[in-house]
Amino acid sequence: MRFEVGCELAYEAKGPASLVMNIEAAKLPRQRILGESLVISPEVPVERYTAPESGNRYLRFAVQGGPVKLRYEAEVELDPHRADPALIDETPIGKLPFETMPHLWPSRYSQSDRLLRSARADFGSLGEGHQRVTALANWIYEHLEYERGSSNQHTSAVDTLVERAGVCRDFANLGIALCRALGIPARFVSAYAWRLDPPDFHAVFEAWLEGRWYLFDATRQAALDGLVRIGVGRDASDVGFCTWDGQVEAGPMKVWNEPSPGQHVTEELTVDAISLSEI
Amino acid sequence: MRFEVGCELAYEAKGPASLVMNIEAAKLPRQRILGESLVISPEVPVERYTAPESGNRYLRFAVQGGPVKLRYEAEVELDPHRADPALIDETPIGKLPFETMPHLWPSRYSQSDRLLRSARADFGSLGEGHQRVTALANWIYEHLEYERGSSNQHTSAVDTLVERAGVCRDFANLGIALCRALGIPARFVSAYAWRLDPPDFHAVFEAWLEGRWYLFDATRQAALDGLVRIGVGRDASDVGFCTWDGQVEAGPMKVWNEPSPGQHVTEELTVDAISLSEI
Amino acid sequence: MRFEVGCELAYEAKGPASLVMNIEAAKLPRQRILGESLVISPEVPVERYTAPESGNRYLRFAVQGGPVKLRYEAEVELDPHRADPALIDETPIGKLPFETMPHLWPSRYSQSDRLLRSARADFGSLGEGHQRVTALANWIYEHLEYERGSSNQHTSAVDTLVERAGVCRDFANLGIALCRALGIPARFVSAYAWRLDPPDFHAVFEAWLEGRWYLFDATRQAALDGLVRIGVGRDASDVGFCTWDGQVEAGPMKVWNEPSPGQHVTEELTVDAISLSEI
Amino acid sequence: MRFEVGCELAYEAKGPASLVMNIEAAKLPRQRILGESLVISPEVPVERYTAPESGNRYLRFAVQGGPVKLRYEAEVELDPHRADPALIDETPIGKLPFETMPHLWPSRYSQSDRLLRSARADFGSLGEGHQRVTALANWIYEHLEYERGSSNQHTSAVDTLVERAGVCRDFANLGIALCRALGIPARFVSAYAWRLDPPDFHAVFEAWLEGRWYLFDATRQAALDGLVRIGVGRDASDVGFCTWDGQVEAGPMKVWNEPSPGQHVTEELTVDAISLSEI
Repeated sequence: MRFEVGCELAYEAKGPASLVMNIEAAKLPRQRILGESLVISPEVPVERYTAPESGNRYLRFAVQGGPVKLRYEAEVELDPHRADPALIDETPIGKLPFETMPHLWPSRYSQSDRLLRSARADFGSLGEGHQRVTALANWIYEHLEYERGSSNQHTSAVDTLVERAGVCRDFANLGIALCRALGIPARFVSAYAWRLDPPDFHAVFEAWLEGRWYLFDATRQAALDGLVRIGVGRDASDVGFCTWDGQVEAGPMKVWNEPSPGQHVTEELTVDAISLSEI
Repeated sequence: MRFEVGCELAYEAKGPASLVMNIEAAKLPRQRILGESLVISPEVPVERYTAPESGNRYLRFAVQGGPVKLRYEAEVELDPHRADPALIDETPIGKLPFETMPHLWPSRYSQSDRLLRSARADFGSLGEGHQRVTALANWIYEHLEYERGSSNQHTSAVDTLVERAGVCRDFANLGIALCRALGIPARFVSAYAWRLDPPDFHAVFEAWLEGRWYLFDATRQAALDGLVRIGVGRDASDVGFCTWDGQVEAGPMKVWNEPSPGQHVTEELTVDAISLSEI
Repeated sequence: MRFEVGCELAYEAKGPASLVMNIEAAKLPRQRILGESLVISPEVPVERYTAPESGNRYLRFAVQGGPVKLRYEAEVELDPHRADPALIDETPIGKLPFETMPHLWPSRYSQSDRLLRSARADFGSLGEGHQRVTALANWIYEHLEYERGSSNQHTSAVDTLVERAGVCRDFANLGIALCRALGIPARFVSAYAWRLDPPDFHAVFEAWLEGRWYLFDATRQAALDGLVRIGVGRDASDVGFCTWDGQVEAGPMKVWNEPSPGQHVTEELTVDAISLSEI
Repeated sequence: MRFEVGCELAYEAKGPASLVMNIEAAKLPRQRILGESLVISPEVPVERYTAPESGNRYLRFAVQGGPVKLRYEAEVELDPHRADPALIDETPIGKLPFETMPHLWPSRYSQSDRLLRSARADFGSLGEGHQRVTALANWIYEHLEYERGSSNQHTSAVDTLVERAGVCRDFANLGIALCRALGIPARFVSAYAWRLDPPDFHAVFEAWLEGRWYLFDATRQAALDGLVRIGVGRDASDVGFCTWDGQVEAGPMKVWNEPSPGQHVTEELTVDAISLSEI
């Protein structure tokens, strides 16, 4: 299925500044970029970098000050792997691909080392595999309040578990921490999300199950088979859509993800297990 | 019922030091001291103070250095108030005696302000009153591991809730935090505990319900109607049995609480709600 | 010197609610109330309580819902004890009045137990007494940014020390924590502050030195000899000017403290050590 | 210069377990392995993996239970880059190689996001470059107590900064956090350390300065030009020498790093800036 995604961002630099953006859709075998454009004003030289371990696409540019505007748009074809959740198992820690190991380790916002006992006690005796991660995501959905302003840039999974409120980044950080505490590699995903209301950048998480990274959204706000991936990382600290050095103020922002015209769209959300990873 | 309680404590002062002890059984209408003795060696002048708001009895003395030994023993008659737990209600916050208000506020080790949502979500819809606090104490008992060495002097209720392990002080601090988050005043109690195995100073908590402070022990290690109260306070920070200024090392310690000879003792633990407060 | 102080507060109750206020000036030998009035609309029965250990004056009342307004005003005569800061010494821990001990213990927002080494390392070798506490308050003033919105109701002295920003409550909580870590009892004071700009409820702290509680303001925003005390407590958790049970929204607020007409007022701030405690 | 390094490790598996080790010296252009051997008893199949982004060499093997012993030894030739510290500058954030960016982001034990103000206030006005990082490492050395048992596996840079005590891992985590807060990429290094007394696995940190990763040891316990690198990572969470899945108990451990016989060894520690990175 094809989606038209994009964003318009505005900043005000109070002096010389350097900005790093991660807003372009990742190029993946299951996520093909049919076309894309990026306009930055003022016109500035842009450095580009695609991180080999993640596929995240970074832009970097410097400005002397004043207003900065970006408009990115892309048409993207998603061909996610779909599977029956009931048939997807966990991989024992001793059999995990070595590449997934860093996603078992605790990170800034997903301090799984402190949650070993709670994860095991609350989710350890559930059925294994995709359904265990779904149970954990359900728990988050049912026990946390989604509340703008309830968290800030320092809020971590431990805080969220204690205070029981947050936004999509917090729901994802907590999902990741609980997975890792159970021995399941997990990572953070930023995305253009279809059906998110109001539209915004979205954050979900992926868990490594039976040879693939499967997507989970503990906020239940978006359609998993309509998520266009921007970045992946250990947690929210790795995946900011814009960071800067210098004095910069963020202005208004517009983000969208809609099916391309002429697509057949069903009302129901998928119940399949969804993965954008190739193998 | 009468109990013989006491302790033998040993310290080594590496130089001039001042020690404050709170080891003597409190004098309460429902806890009568039939006889007691305190021996400190070396013989030193001792200052005494009973705090008016708590009834805690403090000793203070200075030493020039060297070994310090204390032996305290007392015979105590307990006449706790007993009631049917099913009949004990909560008092709405707006009707609480003003004196209990500080026990609604967050404290060092019982940060109830961070647990408002979790307490309400997990225990808010249970039946009110004594049974709600019992449910909360049961949750602690069932979800925490009692494990020596799992916590230290900085460990707070939030840490304990996250890491799911602790000792009696941690179980009590968490019980207090959850009560306060539900609008129930709660406080920390240190005690000579009957049937505690191995014998030691014990920590439990009290919740203010229908005009009294009722005792709860989330560790289920001691008989509530055999607890001889030493101190009460907001949390573990208020109720240390020994603090000092100077360089002091703690040595071996012996603590006991046994029914006085000739008492009739049943094997079963009481199922009554138990209170040592007079009104 | 005489001051006219007061406040106008507005709330909106979304249903039945109970409110507890601590906004009236304390009655102290060195702080005489020459006259005062309190108007609450709607007219409701008000319960009053003065806490024996602090002198804090509490009001409590219930409303059925709708707007609530309070106007408190008082004329207060301050006769603070003044002394030469250079002559005020500390009291060794072993000689402190027992009543001050709870103000040595760590509390919710002033976790002195975690700051023992830093306080000793950074302030331990300075001259003792009033000047040591002044040095510590100066350090706070010089190293923290006073920034509205940088902290919230969960922010503690440890957070403030790490993140180096806060408002008056945070500056006071940190001052208290550092004093206690050095063995100096310290407590939180809420006040009507003269020369505070913009006018608001203010928070400062007191340290126990040579037999009195001396005032310190690490924000340097108010005149110490023009502070009209409202409440004292262990830290910000004990001294809220308004707490409620039920769904209540706070509206606009006006606070003032000005010298009574006809007073002689100097421009310079006092350099005396200032205390409102009688002995 | 050549060094003989190695370790003997013992574990007791209480049942089936899988172990991952990172104990082998990294293979680097400036760190050549002249010879090495690894013996594991019981003899088990070993999987090997060298992480492309770090060069860390991992071993993984499964045991059915019982005692496990490892002996690793290697002769390593170090040819570190040496430079005059006074001539090494920082790279502005906007000019950093993209590959170093993840080492600017906050991580589990190095929460630089919370230290922006303190790092800038305390170290921001010092001379730039290698000397700034040296100043920061000196501050850590001078203000922290190196104390076994003062920290545990959950202790982070923020805890260490507040409590002012730790071991080598804590000193390194804090150095990393402060560097990042100043805009300098930094990472954790585990090593066989020459002159460390008593011998043990050691932890230091690297900062990215003028195109290389330079080594710093805030504990001042080891000779920088005698450090044989084992692993690098974002902080202590990435670089454990042994992790396991299953019930395993660690036994006694022996670690060594001595100059190969016949080397010329001076008594003085180097004052050069030292780097093991090739470019």
